[in-house]
Amino acid sequence: MPDFKPWKVVSSQVVYSAPPYVTVHSHTVELPDGRTIAPYFRIDLRPFVVMAALTSENEIVICRQYRHGIEHASLMLPGGLLEPQEDPLLAAQRELREETGFVSNEWEPLGHFVPNSNYRCGETFIFLARNARQVAQPESGDLEETELILMPLTILLGEIDKGQVVSLSSAAAIALAAARLTGATGVKC
Amino acid sequence: MPDFKPWKVVSSQVVYSAPPYVTVHSHTVELPDGRTIAPYFRIDLRPFVVMAALTSENEIVICRQYRHGIEHASLMLPGGLLEPQEDPLLAAQRELREETGFVSNEWEPLGHFVPNSNYRCGETFIFLARNARQVAQPESGDLEETELILMPLTILLGEIDKGQVVSLSSAAAIALAAARLTGATGVKC
Repeated sequence: MPDFKPWKVVSSQVVYSAPPYVTVHSHTVELPDGRTIAPYFRIDLRPFVVMAALTSENEIVICRQYRHGIEHASLMLPGGLLEPQEDPLLAAQRELREETGFVSNEWEPLGHFVPNSNYRCGETFIFLARNARQVAQPESGDLEETELILMPLTILLGEIDKGQVVSLSSAAAIALAAARLTGATGVKC
Repeated sequence: MPDFKPWKVVSSQVVYSAPPYVTVHSHTVELPDGRTIAPYFRIDLRPFVVMAALTSENEIVICRQYRHGIEHASLMLPGGLLEPQEDPLLAAQRELREETGFVSNEWEPLGHFVPNSNYRCGETFIFLARNARQVAQPESGDLEETELILMPLTILLGEIDKGQVVSLSSAAAIALAAARLTGATGVKC
């Protein structure tokens, strides 16, 4: 297995900053073979959580929302931004309750991912919550109006195929949840 | 089903631009309920493709690479940036051949997604290629040194669980490919 040396950041300059939303850094990087590349960008955005919450009836808790980055209404998993220094699991539990009124005692991580392998663009923490139950009305305080829907996972996977799930992190979380729930045993390879 | 009105962009200003890599717009938006929000950012990045290429032996073509946005080596699906006005499928076929030397005659889309539902951060097109076969050596011209690996899908799903796949789009594509290849029939809900 090759030894991959890290790229070395020779210099870094903040070229745009609007805290806490967006900071763009312009890096000069030195590759392992000695080449120097500039500019190479690093975009800092706030980390976020995405949650696939499954009810005891095997339905997933889904939000239908208009989102400005998507420019139309689509199906989203519940999710949200981490508060500063907030633990990702606690953020997921908080956001699920705020956004949907659902809670669960059975949480497991589905992974920690970087949205853009070149420029980073924040990071996302994905969780599965089993036996989720609604104990309150949604009270997110979010800017978006939200329709709450319960949907069987197979139907939801079909909605991805139909282009109704545009959020990359929602699609990833739904498909990762499906793999976890099946134990990927349906895959014959 | 509620009628979700789009947010209205009242004004838009480019606050940082380094074409063709990054452009940051600061929007003033009007919500459907009349509230005005500013700033709300839109980050334009180049669109990219990600490909899950499956061999006739039911192995997935994987790249192990150091990526600057991830800051360590990890398992990635082949992928790359679209050229201006390039058709996503043609870009996927071109990038697969350049990056891995593999080709396929059996391509199907797994979806078109937005990496960040608030700020957009580009868009990604994910494809599945079946019966992929290697006809050439890799010749990507990419900055990254790459180790090419063939890995059964079930093992690869396990590598996601072990944190060895950090790219969100790679993880999404692997899990979406698994759902497509099983027909999600293993999911009992």
